[in-house]
Amino acid sequence: MAEPAHLTPLAERYRQVRAATEALAEGLSDEDCALQSMPEASPVKWHLAHTTWFFETFVLLDGLAPSGYRAFDDAFRVLFNSYYQGVGERHPRAERGLISRPSRGEVMRYRRQVDEAVLATLAHAPSGGDGDPLAQTLRTRLELGLQHEQQHQELLLTDLKHLLSCNPARPAYRQATRPKRPAVPGGEPWRFHPGGLCSVGRPAEGAGFVFDNETPQHRVWLEPFEIATEPVTQAQWMAFIADGGYRRPELWLSDGWDEVQRSGWEAPGYWQPAQPGRPAASCTELSAWRVFTLHGDIEPHPQDPVCHLSFFEAEAFARWAGARLPTEAEWERVALDSSVPLGSPAAQYADGPWLQPLAPRTPVADGSVWCWTRSNYGPYPGFRPVPGALGEYNGKFMNGQYVLRGGSCATPRGHVRASYRNFFAPQARWQFTGLRLARGAAASP
Amino acid sequence: MAEPAHLTPLAERYRQVRAATEALAEGLSDEDCALQSMPEASPVKWHLAHTTWFFETFVLLDGLAPSGYRAFDDAFRVLFNSYYQGVGERHPRAERGLISRPSRGEVMRYRRQVDEAVLATLAHAPSGGDGDPLAQTLRTRLELGLQHEQQHQELLLTDLKHLLSCNPARPAYRQATRPKRPAVPGGEPWRFHPGGLCSVGRPAEGAGFVFDNETPQHRVWLEPFEIATEPVTQAQWMAFIADGGYRRPELWLSDGWDEVQRSGWEAPGYWQPAQPGRPAASCTELSAWRVFTLHGDIEPHPQDPVCHLSFFEAEAFARWAGARLPTEAEWERVALDSSVPLGSPAAQYADGPWLQPLAPRTPVADGSVWCWTRSNYGPYPGFRPVPGALGEYNGKFMNGQYVLRGGSCATPRGHVRASYRNFFAPQARWQFTGLRLARGAAASP
Amino acid sequence: MAEPAHLTPLAERYRQVRAATEALAEGLSDEDCALQSMPEASPVKWHLAHTTWFFETFVLLDGLAPSGYRAFDDAFRVLFNSYYQGVGERHPRAERGLISRPSRGEVMRYRRQVDEAVLATLAHAPSGGDGDPLAQTLRTRLELGLQHEQQHQELLLTDLKHLLSCNPARPAYRQATRPKRPAVPGGEPWRFHPGGLCSVGRPAEGAGFVFDNETPQHRVWLEPFEIATEPVTQAQWMAFIADGGYRRPELWLSDGWDEVQRSGWEAPGYWQPAQPGRPAASCTELSAWRVFTLHGDIEPHPQDPVCHLSFFEAEAFARWAGARLPTEAEWERVALDSSVPLGSPAAQYADGPWLQPLAPRTPVADGSVWCWTRSNYGPYPGFRPVPGALGEYNGKFMNGQYVLRGGSCATPRGHVRASYRNFFAPQARWQFTGLRLARGAAASP
Amino acid sequence: MAEPAHLTPLAERYRQVRAATEALAEGLSDEDCALQSMPEASPVKWHLAHTTWFFETFVLLDGLAPSGYRAFDDAFRVLFNSYYQGVGERHPRAERGLISRPSRGEVMRYRRQVDEAVLATLAHAPSGGDGDPLAQTLRTRLELGLQHEQQHQELLLTDLKHLLSCNPARPAYRQATRPKRPAVPGGEPWRFHPGGLCSVGRPAEGAGFVFDNETPQHRVWLEPFEIATEPVTQAQWMAFIADGGYRRPELWLSDGWDEVQRSGWEAPGYWQPAQPGRPAASCTELSAWRVFTLHGDIEPHPQDPVCHLSFFEAEAFARWAGARLPTEAEWERVALDSSVPLGSPAAQYADGPWLQPLAPRTPVADGSVWCWTRSNYGPYPGFRPVPGALGEYNGKFMNGQYVLRGGSCATPRGHVRASYRNFFAPQARWQFTGLRLARGAAASP
Repeated sequence: MAEPAHLTPLAERYRQVRAATEALAEGLSDEDCALQSMPEASPVKWHLAHTTWFFETFVLLDGLAPSGYRAFDDAFRVLFNSYYQGVGERHPRAERGLISRPSRGEVMRYRRQVDEAVLATLAHAPSGGDGDPLAQTLRTRLELGLQHEQQHQELLLTDLKHLLSCNPARPAYRQATRPKRPAVPGGEPWRFHPGGLCSVGRPAEGAGFVFDNETPQHRVWLEPFEIATEPVTQAQWMAFIADGGYRRPELWLSDGWDEVQRSGWEAPGYWQPAQPGRPAASCTELSAWRVFTLHGDIEPHPQDPVCHLSFFEAEAFARWAGARLPTEAEWERVALDSSVPLGSPAAQYADGPWLQPLAPRTPVADGSVWCWTRSNYGPYPGFRPVPGALGEYNGKFMNGQYVLRGGSCATPRGHVRASYRNFFAPQARWQFTGLRLARGAAASP
Repeated sequence: MAEPAHLTPLAERYRQVRAATEALAEGLSDEDCALQSMPEASPVKWHLAHTTWFFETFVLLDGLAPSGYRAFDDAFRVLFNSYYQGVGERHPRAERGLISRPSRGEVMRYRRQVDEAVLATLAHAPSGGDGDPLAQTLRTRLELGLQHEQQHQELLLTDLKHLLSCNPARPAYRQATRPKRPAVPGGEPWRFHPGGLCSVGRPAEGAGFVFDNETPQHRVWLEPFEIATEPVTQAQWMAFIADGGYRRPELWLSDGWDEVQRSGWEAPGYWQPAQPGRPAASCTELSAWRVFTLHGDIEPHPQDPVCHLSFFEAEAFARWAGARLPTEAEWERVALDSSVPLGSPAAQYADGPWLQPLAPRTPVADGSVWCWTRSNYGPYPGFRPVPGALGEYNGKFMNGQYVLRGGSCATPRGHVRASYRNFFAPQARWQFTGLRLARGAAASP
Repeated sequence: MAEPAHLTPLAERYRQVRAATEALAEGLSDEDCALQSMPEASPVKWHLAHTTWFFETFVLLDGLAPSGYRAFDDAFRVLFNSYYQGVGERHPRAERGLISRPSRGEVMRYRRQVDEAVLATLAHAPSGGDGDPLAQTLRTRLELGLQHEQQHQELLLTDLKHLLSCNPARPAYRQATRPKRPAVPGGEPWRFHPGGLCSVGRPAEGAGFVFDNETPQHRVWLEPFEIATEPVTQAQWMAFIADGGYRRPELWLSDGWDEVQRSGWEAPGYWQPAQPGRPAASCTELSAWRVFTLHGDIEPHPQDPVCHLSFFEAEAFARWAGARLPTEAEWERVALDSSVPLGSPAAQYADGPWLQPLAPRTPVADGSVWCWTRSNYGPYPGFRPVPGALGEYNGKFMNGQYVLRGGSCATPRGHVRASYRNFFAPQARWQFTGLRLARGAAASP
Repeated sequence: MAEPAHLTPLAERYRQVRAATEALAEGLSDEDCALQSMPEASPVKWHLAHTTWFFETFVLLDGLAPSGYRAFDDAFRVLFNSYYQGVGERHPRAERGLISRPSRGEVMRYRRQVDEAVLATLAHAPSGGDGDPLAQTLRTRLELGLQHEQQHQELLLTDLKHLLSCNPARPAYRQATRPKRPAVPGGEPWRFHPGGLCSVGRPAEGAGFVFDNETPQHRVWLEPFEIATEPVTQAQWMAFIADGGYRRPELWLSDGWDEVQRSGWEAPGYWQPAQPGRPAASCTELSAWRVFTLHGDIEPHPQDPVCHLSFFEAEAFARWAGARLPTEAEWERVALDSSVPLGSPAAQYADGPWLQPLAPRTPVADGSVWCWTRSNYGPYPGFRPVPGALGEYNGKFMNGQYVLRGGSCATPRGHVRASYRNFFAPQARWQFTGLRLARGAAASP
């Protein structure tokens, strides 16, 4: 039995997104999928289960399934609840790697049951079209679940990368060779924006899916500014290192400098001296380093964007370079006002063969690394979380984090938009995070 | 020998501010002045010395003393350097309470030597007026040092309050009786502001002293809003407690809720059950509590502003009340656009007899408590720290903190202005911190 | 090609011990074998690999293999080195659970290669008998490796039990039913020993395998004493709980009481209220508890020995009972001087179907739980560790731990002897640890 | 009114011991007396108060004062209770340095009141002599209080030394010059003891004061051994450092090596390179070091005993030297069987002008440093703590510590005896702790 025609595209999209998650885990052993390398990262198996829990909880068990759906396993309601206090108890985040059972096979059976029930729900949905309130809620929840699953596709890759990096053998997730890139003709390094009273954010309804944290659309006054057309490269970062960037407190925020000392940072995440045991301080050329990637250790490439940077490092680099980080509003207006729309099909995405940032082919837009902004992650004026437990999705994290914009080589295709607000703590380095510089400008270029 | 006439007011002000600091320490024992109760707080003796170090470092030893000034003690250059990496080594902050020597008497001799040298410097300053660059720098540095000392006057009181609160005897800093206040006629609870393109911040020069973090003056777009005319009272806070405010995660930011659990918060800072050992959860009326003050334990007063709140508590209360915290720009515009200017002589200040917040006599303005805003402490557009080590004064702390506006009952008279940006971490509770509610509004009231 | 006849029993024993380890891991998933639940515990896979590393390192790569043996994988030299500084680098203990690769299959291949090489080494060993020094060393190292592997068989079970206990589903390692036991006729509760100048410990050579920490044999003066014929039972422990044992500081060593507070102990390890959420303090009858075992949650049994006790708990119980813990010398003499030798075939061992302590069938001897003694783990008079890296096996841990004597239901058959010194930190609870009481006595019973 | 004649010596001794404590604090500022430098150390003011609390609690308020003695201040019952759970609540140990009030002056008034009441109690004591049970208890409690106060005299000095060492100015407690010592004629380095069945410990009654942990007297079997006639010197320790002693894990217990890494030990406590900033590893001669003492920084002296060693360091040195630490029984028998009794008037004591260990003038006996033994601090066979709260004095600490024997340059005169058991954790270094080597021997020398 098929879903009503107007829901067919959604069912198709559901099948495709769910399959994409599973494709990422193919080729991994059960052991690869079960381990947790730090409290902030989760096992692959947990991602497979939690995304399923999301559909079970907010679609099937929330009154949208046609007949009495029974939970696959009541224990899963707790085990795979990430942080929704409104739903009930949660297994502690730092202990996700202590759960050998359910096995991966059992989690895959969980996925199958939920998939069947979701698709059956779609098949039984009112055929009256979007006007039906229940159909509308179903559509909204499913779309939220799919966006949520896409977010976890990226996390699955970054969490796995962290796990593999803890293994002294530095194993590859997947064998691959870095694609050859034609040299990009050197263009203007800076792009001017006149600022003014600008609209940023998106209305909650009517123009495609958005998370509640992207709403409401509102006005912001911007002074004229310039933004770099390219993300900062590994060669540029090497110059920062060689100039003592990690040893000069005057370049850093106070908390950043403390973190440099505490964590012993001397280079971006996943960089280490090519020669084991060689002091980082003596590695003043790019060739002295190796970079761990999902394809194992590789040589640095001067033109590739630098990534696995904390906010603190990005901010210090900008100061060293005589520039600053853009605000999220600046970044969004540049993305909106560019002739090349964000999300070009030619950009890197998680479905590609090479899961390490390459220099973007199109200026300004897609950068293959998330770009740190100088904006704290907070509520837009007039922000209201969605009601109920789903209101915990975004709003309660609006403290102590910074907004990142754009997308990365590990972001799923189709999951990129100008208003998208990613956010992480200023010391986090395990995402594909880089930066693009900005600076103030005179009123006309 | 007296200073040139145009510098006489500055010399006078120097004498008065320095004396005010010392007056705060009068009546304290050497032991009271030597102890440190937590890493964030400093001993009174350290405040007395560090403010002196500031003048010695940035005036006397920075080329502004007329002849070769010799440092009082080279060891003090390190001991009393708070956080200026550009000046040199620093004694660890958390170990300020391990220094029994120099004695308080020695620190007072340090103050005398520096005072004499500063006043002699003023006396030898060029008589040519402000146009002379050296005189201009001298004036700027002295004014900065005095503003700095006034900040430490407030910290001296709040740090001492924390120390005394650690003593099970809960001793008073100073004996005093709460002033009787005439009942304030109930006015409008909310005041409307139309928003629009507003100017906030201050130019670096030309209109009196400002810290660099208040600059540059810039434009911000504000939507129409309302702000409460009074700070939140103890009676209102009691209602929050009684309604389970500290036990309902849905009211809190995620980090805030974690902090509630970790720190076991059940009430504002310095509140404890009047009856020892009684569970806080059963104290559902204001009379069941006692409040520790610089005058010892007192009974709560329903109309007094609640204080010693963390940002997390203020933010949760606002959500519970169906409102929100103001942004710092909103707060500043309200202060500027009010008919009653901020800083009225009738407000409470650190020179008063009663060092605990009372209900303000004038609506909107001076609230006797610092008000948390929803604004992260960050750089204004175009912000540039002052050059050299003094650039570390404000800029490097622009991470992980929130802006507070206004002033408190422990703020020195004259140290209050609309553009002033105080800032603390979201979990900090040992300052006189409260809140005033805000909410969005239709375009006209 | 077979080993010389005099080595055949050793080869046979080698095959049997190695197979017994693998048998313990049968039925476990790869995920069960890969996780680490706390720094003190290791993954099953690590146990499988480390015991193999031991033979590879101290037999095959230490000059005993007939021709040039090549290490299976150089990385394993580091990954599976537990704590031998003399051998080289070691993967951090707390990060054994971060290694998804080598896979369990690869570890099994490692076992196969080493097994073949060890057996080939035996086959090529000099046929001249034990007199040959190389044959003697080979025999000694192999026997040490087998005793080592038997120790890890017990750890494999206790570490796995801890891991499974972290899973809220409380899964069973193996389905089994508690054996019915005939009631033991009540005998004398105490057995007298006259003390005197006693020999304890064992000579390093000549009387079967001993670890270096059991040597040298030496004299100890003992006063007359009595020892309980049975280990403390669950019913007795319940009386301790019901009498406020966990809430009365006067019963505890100071460090023990601190640990009770810090860890929130209210009952032995793996006990929890049968009714979820019920306060432990109200569970004053044995039936109110459930006990987690390798066979899942079970009901307590009054006559079964209590286990998963820390030294602190055992010591406090003894004080509460008006008795004390025995010293290790007392325990050893009782075991030696008893008419029933330790290690009876009827006792519980790791090859049995039921891996939870049962009341012993023979008084005094085998107790199915390790018994804490009041003796710190230290060097016997004249103790010398074996030379080289193997000297790190025991000697360097002679600090901060207490000696346990006997053996448990998870100890391999044949791995029990009167002089055996097991040792753990006083707060450790994840081994099968219980106690037997002792007390001073008049010179004749 | 004077005490009965038979109590006069006790009254006199009371006055003298109490005065000696106060003499140690003379010349210190109130600030010196108020600070606490680490949780294990207490402020001088706290020592002054706690020793007084001991008399108030266990003499005056425990039924021994003639009429109704009223506590000086009820709050002091909690503030100055160290660890007696049986007495009631205790102010947290780590927060003793947060108490600026009571002032030192108030504490001195507390001492005066208690002194008067104690002496009045003595004056009213039954004149019937020791046979009277109340007089007997009074005498016992007073003697315990005086022994207790003498222990705190030593702690007062070592705690103060630690505090002063935290001050970058490294101030002196008291100005003094190291006494010149005549060269000691080189004697036999080792002294032989035949061992055998030896008596150690002391009976609880009948032969002068002993702590309960020194009882009961009991028999121990000792094998023949030798003990060094002198404590290890600074010159010998320098050889250990120069031979890589702090960088060779094979010399250390596992926990000791961990502590070396964690704490960054490169030399004994209070040693630092004479040239600031010079790496310790390059300081391979004694002259390259400076040693902090109660008389400020001084040069090392090759013949002086090394001190401020942890057990871990002492134990590692013994291994490096091919020897071992003595057991406490060995040490006690050597002290008892020596022709020169322990506690000679010519030895160093806390009443001397020089508070840093010097080479002893008499072989074997008084060493001016406490000597670590290889013996864990535990109960002697048949040990019973005294009844009531005083039973917490010693017994509950019998875990995780090692016994030290002898006495130090900071021990009060008269507080040294062969059976005395001092005890500290193996990582503690702030006492005057050194070592003397031992080794096994043939049956006759």
